[in-house]
Amino acid sequence: MTNGFEVAAAELVRVGRMAAERGWVPATSGNFSLRLGGDEAAITVSGAHKGDLSVDRIMRVDLQGRPLEDKRPSAETQLHVQLYRRDPAVRAVFHTHSVGGTVLSRLAGDELVLAGFEVMKAFAAIDTHETTLRVPVFANDQDMTRLATRVAAFLDSGNPVPGYLIAGHGLYTWGASVAEALRHLEAFEFLFQCDLEMRRLIAR
Amino acid sequence: MTNGFEVAAAELVRVGRMAAERGWVPATSGNFSLRLGGDEAAITVSGAHKGDLSVDRIMRVDLQGRPLEDKRPSAETQLHVQLYRRDPAVRAVFHTHSVGGTVLSRLAGDELVLAGFEVMKAFAAIDTHETTLRVPVFANDQDMTRLATRVAAFLDSGNPVPGYLIAGHGLYTWGASVAEALRHLEAFEFLFQCDLEMRRLIAR
Amino acid sequence: MTNGFEVAAAELVRVGRMAAERGWVPATSGNFSLRLGGDEAAITVSGAHKGDLSVDRIMRVDLQGRPLEDKRPSAETQLHVQLYRRDPAVRAVFHTHSVGGTVLSRLAGDELVLAGFEVMKAFAAIDTHETTLRVPVFANDQDMTRLATRVAAFLDSGNPVPGYLIAGHGLYTWGASVAEALRHLEAFEFLFQCDLEMRRLIAR
Amino acid sequence: MTNGFEVAAAELVRVGRMAAERGWVPATSGNFSLRLGGDEAAITVSGAHKGDLSVDRIMRVDLQGRPLEDKRPSAETQLHVQLYRRDPAVRAVFHTHSVGGTVLSRLAGDELVLAGFEVMKAFAAIDTHETTLRVPVFANDQDMTRLATRVAAFLDSGNPVPGYLIAGHGLYTWGASVAEALRHLEAFEFLFQCDLEMRRLIAR
Repeated sequence: MTNGFEVAAAELVRVGRMAAERGWVPATSGNFSLRLGGDEAAITVSGAHKGDLSVDRIMRVDLQGRPLEDKRPSAETQLHVQLYRRDPAVRAVFHTHSVGGTVLSRLAGDELVLAGFEVMKAFAAIDTHETTLRVPVFANDQDMTRLATRVAAFLDSGNPVPGYLIAGHGLYTWGASVAEALRHLEAFEFLFQCDLEMRRLIAR
Repeated sequence: MTNGFEVAAAELVRVGRMAAERGWVPATSGNFSLRLGGDEAAITVSGAHKGDLSVDRIMRVDLQGRPLEDKRPSAETQLHVQLYRRDPAVRAVFHTHSVGGTVLSRLAGDELVLAGFEVMKAFAAIDTHETTLRVPVFANDQDMTRLATRVAAFLDSGNPVPGYLIAGHGLYTWGASVAEALRHLEAFEFLFQCDLEMRRLIAR
Repeated sequence: MTNGFEVAAAELVRVGRMAAERGWVPATSGNFSLRLGGDEAAITVSGAHKGDLSVDRIMRVDLQGRPLEDKRPSAETQLHVQLYRRDPAVRAVFHTHSVGGTVLSRLAGDELVLAGFEVMKAFAAIDTHETTLRVPVFANDQDMTRLATRVAAFLDSGNPVPGYLIAGHGLYTWGASVAEALRHLEAFEFLFQCDLEMRRLIAR
Repeated sequence: MTNGFEVAAAELVRVGRMAAERGWVPATSGNFSLRLGGDEAAITVSGAHKGDLSVDRIMRVDLQGRPLEDKRPSAETQLHVQLYRRDPAVRAVFHTHSVGGTVLSRLAGDELVLAGFEVMKAFAAIDTHETTLRVPVFANDQDMTRLATRVAAFLDSGNPVPGYLIAGHGLYTWGASVAEALRHLEAFEFLFQCDLEMRRLIAR
């Protein structure tokens, strides 16, 4: 599925439309990529609305994030390609910008701690609700190299959570296929909604 | 309607899509079944996304929950078939995993008490809002046999509520037809939203 | 538009689908009617899901609420026909059952007081936001004659608000055309959402 | 795109439908305009539902707001044309009436202060989240000339925020193209949701 650029681009168009329908990519926020063969990836260009993508708003980059055609890739391309470089099993990286993810990323401190939810089993490495997930929250930064360095330290830490938050900015998640990355995405966004709802009701 | 597997599978595809559109089956959560003739049931397979079902992701099991074809049924098949075994009138069992059901199942203690809502008349045994419904909440458990035993005690108790919650995990509801089970499902999810909203506003 | 039953039924099918898409008629709640010529009205039958109506689930009644064909009209038919009897200008009556209307109807006491909202100008008799609307809230009652008597006292009171709430049960609103009744419906449901949101945030 | 009235009207029909689907133009609230050539603009007529526009519910006005055809323009036409008169780069003006905008406009005092959100980069003049936006909130007024005078003072102030709120009434935003005005609209409505959610959770 990720060998052909055209096929990958069609997948990204579909993922973008789904995310837009749920309100997860307002304005021109969010970005989405898929691994291609030959150390390349397909990624959304800078400034496109993700609910209305077409193949010309998706482009090829190498795994250093350098453009392989005459378009400008997403400003956050470094955060995508570091995942592809680090783990050959990663084939899809999705970044969304939902109300829940944005708000929690500003309230949770350095990490969002989740426990007791059955849906945590949607994450590839988890097979019970009787565990505690620690989703890291990184300070937002317009310097992508600096931000990528902090993310790298998390990826090296052995934390099995396939995602992280950037404060005021949203979620990055990934998977070994489009289907797995979408499953992780839906699970995270659902957990964010549950956690927000519980914060509203407890702590009185 | 439940005599033919193909017809039952088409119904389950439709129910799954409706539940997904409302956000009630994130990631691969939720499962749905219908009684077939001859002590069999059609049930969704393990791991499928419920918004995107097709007949090959639905399978036949017997009423002990044993697979009748070479697929893996939902991990929670025991919770479905115990309802079919116990009451011949039950023809449809739906399990959803909404934000409201998940959060309330963790806040409500051992039971969720509902009173004063007109929509409670949607439940087959209720004909007035002037009653009190007690929806049991069971602790979540990855051991389905143990969980089914606790559910059986509730089913034997004479409580007329056609549904229960599992903590952090969502709702089970059922009915004498697809239409009745859907009516119960919509009524429960609506009541969960109302109850959450009231908890936010009262108790200050 | 309201002279022909078939045309009226098609309108009610459309209104029901719209209300269902917004979550305003869960389970089989809600009911909708239109005035026909000759002191008759078209109204939804008892027990139908309003998101999935068809002409056979809509029926003719006289303005006393008596069925003019062999179907069972909505249990709340009296609340519709009293509006048609009282005011010849009323041509459409819509009853919805939203989370906002249900919750507010239980929190607001005897009346919901609304002020300072531009959208109040959507009500036919209001031309400024600088006014105060008092939406009455009636206690729920399975005795429709008794409930209709209390509503009649409100209708005779001169309050210009084209709608009322029943506690735990939702909204009745009406208008001189389908378009006006829909405008009133959208305005009320929007005001309910705004009022709930403000209750969450003020009063701390 | 804004030279031909028919093309502009088709754009406004599309924008109105999108806004209605998101619940941003309840009843007949909201209004939308596009600059045409020759010191004219296309604007929605008074009283139309914005989710169901057609070319006959859109009309031409001059940049003083005077009708150029025999229809009644939106009561708030003055607020649109003052933006076109003041800045030749403004080509689209959108007014929405969401729950979030309405509620925040009543809670925020004289201005809504936003900081730390990545999505603020959606505004043309902003390139970092490390800034503070001050969205002015004007008291609602049925006298449009008086309201326009207060808005003019804000527009002259050099505040780079491309939008303002009217209390109890909603948002005005604009842009150098339909796409830019839509991007600003989505960014504002998203920020309103985030800000409301944070107000619910902080300040306890």
